[in-house]
Amino acid sequence: MIHFESDYLEGCAPQILEALQATNLEQTLGYGEDPHCAKAAEMIRFVFDCPDAEVHFLVGGTQTNATVIDALLRPHQGVICADSGHINVHETGAVEHGGHKVLALPAPQGKISAAQVRDALQAHYADFSHEHMAQPGMVYISFPTELGTIYTKQELTDLYQVCQDWEIPLFIDGARLGYGLEASGCNVLPKDIARLCDVFYVGGTKQGALFGEAVVFSNPRLAEDFRYIEKQHGGMLAKGRLLGIQFETLMNNGLYFQLARRADRLADRIRAAFARKRIPFLVENTTNQIFPILEIDAIDRLAAEFGVERWQQVDTERAAVRFCTGWATAESAVEALEAYIEFKL
Amino acid sequence: MIHFESDYLEGCAPQILEALQATNLEQTLGYGEDPHCAKAAEMIRFVFDCPDAEVHFLVGGTQTNATVIDALLRPHQGVICADSGHINVHETGAVEHGGHKVLALPAPQGKISAAQVRDALQAHYADFSHEHMAQPGMVYISFPTELGTIYTKQELTDLYQVCQDWEIPLFIDGARLGYGLEASGCNVLPKDIARLCDVFYVGGTKQGALFGEAVVFSNPRLAEDFRYIEKQHGGMLAKGRLLGIQFETLMNNGLYFQLARRADRLADRIRAAFARKRIPFLVENTTNQIFPILEIDAIDRLAAEFGVERWQQVDTERAAVRFCTGWATAESAVEALEAYIEFKL
Amino acid sequence: MIHFESDYLEGCAPQILEALQATNLEQTLGYGEDPHCAKAAEMIRFVFDCPDAEVHFLVGGTQTNATVIDALLRPHQGVICADSGHINVHETGAVEHGGHKVLALPAPQGKISAAQVRDALQAHYADFSHEHMAQPGMVYISFPTELGTIYTKQELTDLYQVCQDWEIPLFIDGARLGYGLEASGCNVLPKDIARLCDVFYVGGTKQGALFGEAVVFSNPRLAEDFRYIEKQHGGMLAKGRLLGIQFETLMNNGLYFQLARRADRLADRIRAAFARKRIPFLVENTTNQIFPILEIDAIDRLAAEFGVERWQQVDTERAAVRFCTGWATAESAVEALEAYIEFKL
Amino acid sequence: MIHFESDYLEGCAPQILEALQATNLEQTLGYGEDPHCAKAAEMIRFVFDCPDAEVHFLVGGTQTNATVIDALLRPHQGVICADSGHINVHETGAVEHGGHKVLALPAPQGKISAAQVRDALQAHYADFSHEHMAQPGMVYISFPTELGTIYTKQELTDLYQVCQDWEIPLFIDGARLGYGLEASGCNVLPKDIARLCDVFYVGGTKQGALFGEAVVFSNPRLAEDFRYIEKQHGGMLAKGRLLGIQFETLMNNGLYFQLARRADRLADRIRAAFARKRIPFLVENTTNQIFPILEIDAIDRLAAEFGVERWQQVDTERAAVRFCTGWATAESAVEALEAYIEFKL
Repeated sequence: MIHFESDYLEGCAPQILEALQATNLEQTLGYGEDPHCAKAAEMIRFVFDCPDAEVHFLVGGTQTNATVIDALLRPHQGVICADSGHINVHETGAVEHGGHKVLALPAPQGKISAAQVRDALQAHYADFSHEHMAQPGMVYISFPTELGTIYTKQELTDLYQVCQDWEIPLFIDGARLGYGLEASGCNVLPKDIARLCDVFYVGGTKQGALFGEAVVFSNPRLAEDFRYIEKQHGGMLAKGRLLGIQFETLMNNGLYFQLARRADRLADRIRAAFARKRIPFLVENTTNQIFPILEIDAIDRLAAEFGVERWQQVDTERAAVRFCTGWATAESAVEALEAYIEFKL
Repeated sequence: MIHFESDYLEGCAPQILEALQATNLEQTLGYGEDPHCAKAAEMIRFVFDCPDAEVHFLVGGTQTNATVIDALLRPHQGVICADSGHINVHETGAVEHGGHKVLALPAPQGKISAAQVRDALQAHYADFSHEHMAQPGMVYISFPTELGTIYTKQELTDLYQVCQDWEIPLFIDGARLGYGLEASGCNVLPKDIARLCDVFYVGGTKQGALFGEAVVFSNPRLAEDFRYIEKQHGGMLAKGRLLGIQFETLMNNGLYFQLARRADRLADRIRAAFARKRIPFLVENTTNQIFPILEIDAIDRLAAEFGVERWQQVDTERAAVRFCTGWATAESAVEALEAYIEFKL
Repeated sequence: MIHFESDYLEGCAPQILEALQATNLEQTLGYGEDPHCAKAAEMIRFVFDCPDAEVHFLVGGTQTNATVIDALLRPHQGVICADSGHINVHETGAVEHGGHKVLALPAPQGKISAAQVRDALQAHYADFSHEHMAQPGMVYISFPTELGTIYTKQELTDLYQVCQDWEIPLFIDGARLGYGLEASGCNVLPKDIARLCDVFYVGGTKQGALFGEAVVFSNPRLAEDFRYIEKQHGGMLAKGRLLGIQFETLMNNGLYFQLARRADRLADRIRAAFARKRIPFLVENTTNQIFPILEIDAIDRLAAEFGVERWQQVDTERAAVRFCTGWATAESAVEALEAYIEFKL
Repeated sequence: MIHFESDYLEGCAPQILEALQATNLEQTLGYGEDPHCAKAAEMIRFVFDCPDAEVHFLVGGTQTNATVIDALLRPHQGVICADSGHINVHETGAVEHGGHKVLALPAPQGKISAAQVRDALQAHYADFSHEHMAQPGMVYISFPTELGTIYTKQELTDLYQVCQDWEIPLFIDGARLGYGLEASGCNVLPKDIARLCDVFYVGGTKQGALFGEAVVFSNPRLAEDFRYIEKQHGGMLAKGRLLGIQFETLMNNGLYFQLARRADRLADRIRAAFARKRIPFLVENTTNQIFPILEIDAIDRLAAEFGVERWQQVDTERAAVRFCTGWATAESAVEALEAYIEFKL
């Protein structure tokens, strides 16, 4: 069986295991107050060109989202996001557990627009009874989105402008940030991400680390209480240096971006193979997730040879499936899939 | 100015003030453990024909909804409701403050159907990643709904059957319960309400009381911890007897239903007046709220003489407005409105 | 049976019932946005000499405490209070339900001192691991305390100074505020209360109202989001004018203070009766609660004639009981008790 | 500088890095549903002789405590623990963030007794106003405690009996479980831990793992919803197999216990060195933490050569410090410390 189910099937980039080995008996303070975390933070500030940013390291995505959102909102505030947003669908109500409503907007391609957010804010405050409604207190997007689509620089610029006009922060979930930044046709640079939001995170778990997400407060004022709230959410790793070491390694010589680029190019090849057979896609995108629409029985046959995620029923006879490439995807696996698509699908 | 903005513009039915006067210097224990609460509970059990029910009295609707929902759900569970449901829209995120996600279903007429709920439950558990989703733990409906529509006995029966099949409780928000039960064409009796859900409340605030909602656990097993949770939510009134006295008075000789019936009949007259002018309605209904669709400038003229709530823009030129009758609506006010509709609209 | 169990055994001052009667058919907007609330707020600002204060009206004490505390704290912050404080003991964990830790300090007389609070704050920030501790974010005291004791003007001044030095707000629970201000020997004036804290409330429930607590933000900056949070906590009364009408009445011609003064003087008579018999007290105080220490069998005999709260076992043979006077206590009841103490105890 | 500040200064046991290396390119499902987690769970059930237990793996201690407690309690319930308990002092209010009160009992040696818990429960339910108090819903202890003390088998048996009598679960925090079980004089066996509580965890972070805590529900009925709540708390690791691999390694050939035993014996040597100099201890214990009481200036001198945690001021001239040994402590470090104590202290 050749696996394309997700981008977290394997352990980590070999360089990270080497670094863990090399540092194993170093003695450091806990809770992220060690030289590796300091160095990794410095490297991230450099790479994303945000010299004043404050950087914190957490273990996983749901935890990161819930902690950042809880740190930014007042009790009566909610978070605007796409209806397909991870926080709205796949975190077992973690945001609500923190007391906050998720204010979902329709987003067929996984993206929400500046106009949508502005309209939602205007409608909210125009409502005579807005004191009886959860107040929109921040905007959450993911880059790339759950559907593997990405925002253009202009879209991000517009979205952030709306947030600034209404004085609410913009938070970018970057669980797959590298796969977004290295996508074909992406005109957003790392520094644009930092510049066009108040806080974002650089996802490690799905991009070559064993685990870890680096939260970057480009707007450091918002980070004031973050360590307290991180601890309260159970998100402060005792041996914090494990996060520092991993991000040092990923930022070193652009490894993070190399791994993402390679995975995106492999995804492009799979995408092209489907396109050559005129197979439609659920969504047009260029990142490491591919969503072809196939006949159900074709999916059943394919699933005998390739691990793939059944994503969404499209009509009675067809469904979308998801293929993921990742930092660890073997080229041979892609070749086998290309051959299958060409000759057996 | 003649007011039709809401059904809580005035104080209370005169009989209630008399009862408060008559009992004012009685000395009773606090927190609902007094003879008036006991008597009122007994009367409610009789009227709704649920001899085993447990009855608790709270002050207001948002508090009641949040407390009941928090008492019934486990932390990871959410509550299914109509997207227009009060808990989803007009409680400033009170349910989320208690840690629970509101799982909203589309409901153009304010109602959700048994089929919708069953489909939502099936889709949820069919989802491979349902452990990553807030689990549906109960169903909330309102009778009548926010749009003044009511469920038929068959619809309620079907909905409750789905809830029982999936072993999740059904909660009926009865903030305007009387207006629903007395509506023309309603085939649901008080005893049907009690029989076809696990817990409901008999709304007092909008139906002749100064304040107060009587929560009735037809399924008393669910009430086990309720007093603790009521206290924790700040919902246990020190002088609980005030609630008992009001519900004793409302249940006495069917006052509660008389007041509602009178308001519904006045609403029918207003509805008929609009219908005679072939003015369309946002929604077809028979309770104490009427939602005609009017030209914007007609609304502006009308608003100079009648207090009315602007409800919803329908297109660029027209909007729906809401007229409410209530236990205190003067017949003369309705006559003035009828005349206005006939001759000046 | 003559009742001294609590100060909320009866309904309300007759003037309030009259005012409710007189205003019953007035039509007003809901949720506290009516002329009565505006007027009552104005009167409270005048009486407490805090012209810039923001005033909000809630129904009950637990709800008020939980809402104010939730509005003032960040998620990781807790509230410092006396170990006997109402929020620590008698609110079924309402503060914790809002996510906050109660940081209790020992308080044998129900009071905490400026020195205690300063020491606690210093110890907290001196602790190397204070990021792993709930951060003290505000101070809560009650005036009078749960034990009926009161702070002197100097004590309040010192306490507020510490709070200002450490930039955390001081909140005074005034559920029995009038009984405190009218106590013999009290050198704190209403304006001192407003001046020496950031937010306090004027308790109505125990002082002549049917229900109601008036929250006064002397520091109005802290009230910015209060209405949202009040609604979210289920604390926004639909017919808010009921609170406005009651506080208008209580503030009119000093009724609030007259009722309290009368109750305090009756308490002084009871206290003196015990003192004449050389019966010791659990605590020395001058407000409307009296805590004599009696032999258990004496309590049993007394309890056959007088309703009284068994408060606390003192040793194997003796216990403290609580007698409460209130706005409604009959002079004849006090005379009967005086006679019992003198001749039958 | 030779470090004794804590038992999480280094990475992990070399065997774990080897296992991570060996499994790095295996492809597994995420979220703990992989063969390594299954195997590790099986091994833990064997070692702790609890064949019916349900085992879940989380990343860190605070997260584990908050998640287990939230899973076990109803909203109005609190958790009984020692006042020095980790959940009461060092988790930034994580339990309260989940909505629950920590009900702390005085515990000079870090331990609470069966009698204390029984008395607290009796006093609670004897209180007339217990509906106004947070209800005790479970008991939390740590083994060993924060002060490195351990419970005897009899003490655990008695404590669990009280919990069973009152029908509330007992939860044992085993962040340092191995150090407790291997302590000199400990008469508690692994199987006793499983047998004498409802749920406990086997701490990995402080005992040779990079990170990880294995939660063992000896009473599997309590685990029913655990995965949902784990996800909601951000505690479900994407690459769950990392936890499985680590616990497989630690359970293999008793490595977990060997590492703990070695650390305890090194601690015994340090303890003996202090005792030979007749230096008193803050607490008598036999686990991997040692708490000698020293003159402040002696501490200052010592701190120039040995990393040590300043624990607690004892009087104006003396303080307790904490030395920790751990799975990675070098024997040479202990020898150096022994020499320092003998000749230079």
